Amino acid sequence: FLCVVFVNGNFCKDLAQVIANDFFFSGLNIPGNTRNKNGLNITLVNVDNLAVLNTLGISLACIDYAPYAVISPHTHPRGTELLVVIEGTLLVGFVTSDPNKLFTKVLNKGDVFIFPIGLIHFQINIGETATLAFASFNSQNPGFITIENAVFGSNPPINPDVLIKAFQLDKGVVEYLQKAFVPN
Amino acid sequence: FLCVVFVNGNFCKDLAQVIANDFFFSGLNIPGNTRNKNGLNITLVNVDNLAVLNTLGISLACIDYAPYAVISPHTHPRGTELLVVIEGTLLVGFVTSDPNKLFTKVLNKGDVFIFPIGLIHFQINIGETATLAFASFNSQNPGFITIENAVFGSNPPINPDVLIKAFQLDKGVVEYLQKAFVPN
Amino acid sequence: FLCVVFVNGNFCKDLAQVIANDFFFSGLNIPGNTRNKNGLNITLVNVDNLAVLNTLGISLACIDYAPYAVISPHTHPRGTELLVVIEGTLLVGFVTSDPNKLFTKVLNKGDVFIFPIGLIHFQINIGETATLAFASFNSQNPGFITIENAVFGSNPPINPDVLIKAFQLDKGVVEYLQKAFVPN
Amino acid sequence: FLCVVFVNGNFCKDLAQVIANDFFFSGLNIPGNTRNKNGLNITLVNVDNLAVLNTLGISLACIDYAPYAVISPHTHPRGTELLVVIEGTLLVGFVTSDPNKLFTKVLNKGDVFIFPIGLIHFQINIGETATLAFASFNSQNPGFITIENAVFGSNPPINPDVLIKAFQLDKGVVEYLQKAFVPN
Amino acid sequence: FLCVVFVNGNFCKDLAQVIANDFFFSGLNIPGNTRNKNGLNITLVNVDNLAVLNTLGISLACIDYAPYAVISPHTHPRGTELLVVIEGTLLVGFVTSDPNKLFTKVLNKGDVFIFPIGLIHFQINIGETATLAFASFNSQNPGFITIENAVFGSNPPINPDVLIKAFQLDKGVVEYLQKAFVPN
Amino acid sequence: FLCVVFVNGNFCKDLAQVIANDFFFSGLNIPGNTRNKNGLNITLVNVDNLAVLNTLGISLACIDYAPYAVISPHTHPRGTELLVVIEGTLLVGFVTSDPNKLFTKVLNKGDVFIFPIGLIHFQINIGETATLAFASFNSQNPGFITIENAVFGSNPPINPDVLIKAFQLDKGVVEYLQKAFVPN
Repeated sequence: FLCVVFVNGNFCKDLAQVIANDFFFSGLNIPGNTRNKNGLNITLVNVDNLAVLNTLGISLACIDYAPYAVISPHTHPRGTELLVVIEGTLLVGFVTSDPNKLFTKVLNKGDVFIFPIGLIHFQINIGETATLAFASFNSQNPGFITIENAVFGSNPPINPDVLIKAFQLDKGVVEYLQKAFVPN
Repeated sequence: FLCVVFVNGNFCKDLAQVIANDFFFSGLNIPGNTRNKNGLNITLVNVDNLAVLNTLGISLACIDYAPYAVISPHTHPRGTELLVVIEGTLLVGFVTSDPNKLFTKVLNKGDVFIFPIGLIHFQINIGETATLAFASFNSQNPGFITIENAVFGSNPPINPDVLIKAFQLDKGVVEYLQKAFVPN
Repeated sequence: FLCVVFVNGNFCKDLAQVIANDFFFSGLNIPGNTRNKNGLNITLVNVDNLAVLNTLGISLACIDYAPYAVISPHTHPRGTELLVVIEGTLLVGFVTSDPNKLFTKVLNKGDVFIFPIGLIHFQINIGETATLAFASFNSQNPGFITIENAVFGSNPPINPDVLIKAFQLDKGVVEYLQKAFVPN
Repeated sequence: FLCVVFVNGNFCKDLAQVIANDFFFSGLNIPGNTRNKNGLNITLVNVDNLAVLNTLGISLACIDYAPYAVISPHTHPRGTELLVVIEGTLLVGFVTSDPNKLFTKVLNKGDVFIFPIGLIHFQINIGETATLAFASFNSQNPGFITIENAVFGSNPPINPDVLIKAFQLDKGVVEYLQKAFVPN
Repeated sequence: FLCVVFVNGNFCKDLAQVIANDFFFSGLNIPGNTRNKNGLNITLVNVDNLAVLNTLGISLACIDYAPYAVISPHTHPRGTELLVVIEGTLLVGFVTSDPNKLFTKVLNKGDVFIFPIGLIHFQINIGETATLAFASFNSQNPGFITIENAVFGSNPPINPDVLIKAFQLDKGVVEYLQKAFVPN
Repeated sequence: FLCVVFVNGNFCKDLAQVIANDFFFSGLNIPGNTRNKNGLNITLVNVDNLAVLNTLGISLACIDYAPYAVISPHTHPRGTELLVVIEGTLLVGFVTSDPNKLFTKVLNKGDVFIFPIGLIHFQINIGETATLAFASFNSQNPGFITIENAVFGSNPPINPDVLIKAFQLDKGVVEYLQKAFVPN
């Protein structure tokens, strides 16, 4: 990974080899293709595709939502999220840790919402049109844990007995879910 | 909250009023009562019940598991966990964020396992006897998000349409789960 | 200031009194009025107007640029900036600290650029139309130091001898500038 | 050292090569051999023997104390300690920095005590039976400075004049101590 | 870069290869040569010339001022400065970010002044004799941005239109300044 | 405590009430009175006597040493030290934590030495004249633990049995030391 000496440390490359493009990412103007199962397109601008972000502690996600698309309950284990809606309408919510209090809000164009670090949250496009939003994070590597995929679709699968007991579901439902969310 | 001037900051009380008991917590020798629905007893030693931990960045949980008890998939949004088994046998696991890779291990007396910050993890007492374990955290307030309670048992409940779409469950199953996990 | 217990610390209010609107900010959809001297409108979403950001380490600025408007060389003393262009065209640049190397880039709709913490940077709308951009910061209070205002327009003014010597300008020019930038 | 991308940074190995055993440490069930000069056995679970702890900021020590064994006054220069007694009885204490106030407590099975970062503390098994305790730290590399070894047993030795003056001891006593604590 | 395991992390060299000189820097007793254009001599003791400072978060600058010498308005993007005057008299000042409030003070031998992270500040030797001061920083790599050099002397130069508009200067004055501050 | 909004947080006072003297400390030009038992005078410029340092993470100590004066082995539990000698000659040393390796150096006027956070170190004026040095710290509250005072002079005293066993000293010697170091 590239990084330059803007930080308190010296793990990094020589400034002489750095160019403006190291700080540049493009293409977020192109509408994301949402013709998929989830009706979503998420483009990340984080340390994996903009290496200079390493140690700078910031990143971005550009999210396209087809009408009625849902971003399932998920967490970012290493960052707080600030979401701003560019076009469209979202119902968003997050759940605090103890007690499990839900906070929800309908967001329209120009609205901002904060999802604190590590808390489970979700977004749903409740409008009849495409929605576009930008999510910024105070981490270059915030992570993204989709609850149903992590719980029912991990590789290898979680022991069904754990899930049957935790979710109080029949064995058949758990097996059904574990097949449904198996990663491709 | 009480805290004293051991930290880089001065939000705190006068050292003259501090006593040894401010650094002391007792009672973890008493076996926790696990005769409840989950077969679990969790005693926390964190900033909420040992105020001096404020700004010191450490805490502890003492966990009793009845035979076959399960600690459901959960996360700690603000801390890494180090678990040590004192008595009994646990099957433990965690799922990484992307891809959703599961790491599992059977832990016996004297075994240690690490659960990195924010990742979904679980524990199951796979022995026929009670298990006792201590979990330490590098945060005085790590938080505890039980997935099924946060997702299906929040107050108020999450819009069922979000859960139906996310978990690919019938409306009836979601309604059943939302009743099952309603907080008392 | 309000804040809630999502952080490692306990300086904060009771969760029971928190509402969804504490995490919400609106109005960024309304085009900013740029009919002013600088042709700029900057709306901040930081800890000063969204108190829950306290300790969460993130904030946003929404920037409208009239055609040919310039955001003068400035720094954010406490945060790195990630800029994304929503509409229009910007020429942006920053200067590293030692040596003073300039990195510039023309940004169009959907382009992203990173300005590392504390470095002097600027933006100019080089298009014939209004430009809209969002700047996110990994600080709830990044600060904004406009160089010419801080240097020539401080209250009280900096000793002219310092500026004459530093900028190698005639006394008359310095006096002219100190009048020009006097704060209202 | 191994580490994986659970942190804000990218100094680390590929997740594909990580296995569950990277998060696992065993053997703390085996009673430590305390038939030595100090009557102590300390097993560390830190970054030196569980490499995945690198950047995760947590570690553990498992301590066996023979009857009447003493852990001499010492400090951990890079971490706060949370001690929990599993079996037996300890007298513990720490001294604050200025003024030098001593806080002591007798700990029995199930008791917890906090030793803030960098402060001098000690433990003594005041019971007639073996004691077992776990110490957790909010650092993967907290360090361990035994005062008498660092002061009188360093390699090479500290100039005796410093110690004579500091400790107000006769030259003969200092020379005796410097021989007594010479490292093997 | 060299560093040793005094920190929470393990990026570093083996302690066995470390020697006392790794922690040592000399020569600040020799009066700096101030017979130059600026009448200044600045010797840095930072991670670039004392490698062990890497990760230790501290550094020093030794500054000689000829009579009437000026350290132009500048910032340190990554550290707070504590200045102590050893000999002579300085007029110092810094400007806050918003509003641009100026704080100034005359410092004599034995006086200390604090310049908070990232803020623009300056120093002028207002005495008729040489002045010597030490500046310490809470960063091993605080950076040094001289405003006029960064703004008018960057390589390549900033677009003059930006500077004309920002500083409300004639094109001729800007061109003059950009020539005056071109780096050697 | 006073602090102002230069930091990521808002625990602080209104900028309008801040004056230049809040950033100012004077009197270090006056030679410290070293006609005392230890031949030392230490003046601290930390958060306790310059409140604006709160959250700024930096402080200073000004140290006068009479000829042959010794600063006993001590630690700073919350900061790394950078020492610069202004006048005179010091023998300095520190001991690493494990193994207990001693690094020593003779420092003359203009020499700098680094003492990493939490490690035991000492200084002795080995010249026939007074020595003056400045120690800067990357903490506004680094702490100061003099080993012999903390170990033998705490209030109340440490149980002599602990010290007899730790230091392998006769009971009489320990009792003698505990009387010698009793705080006034």
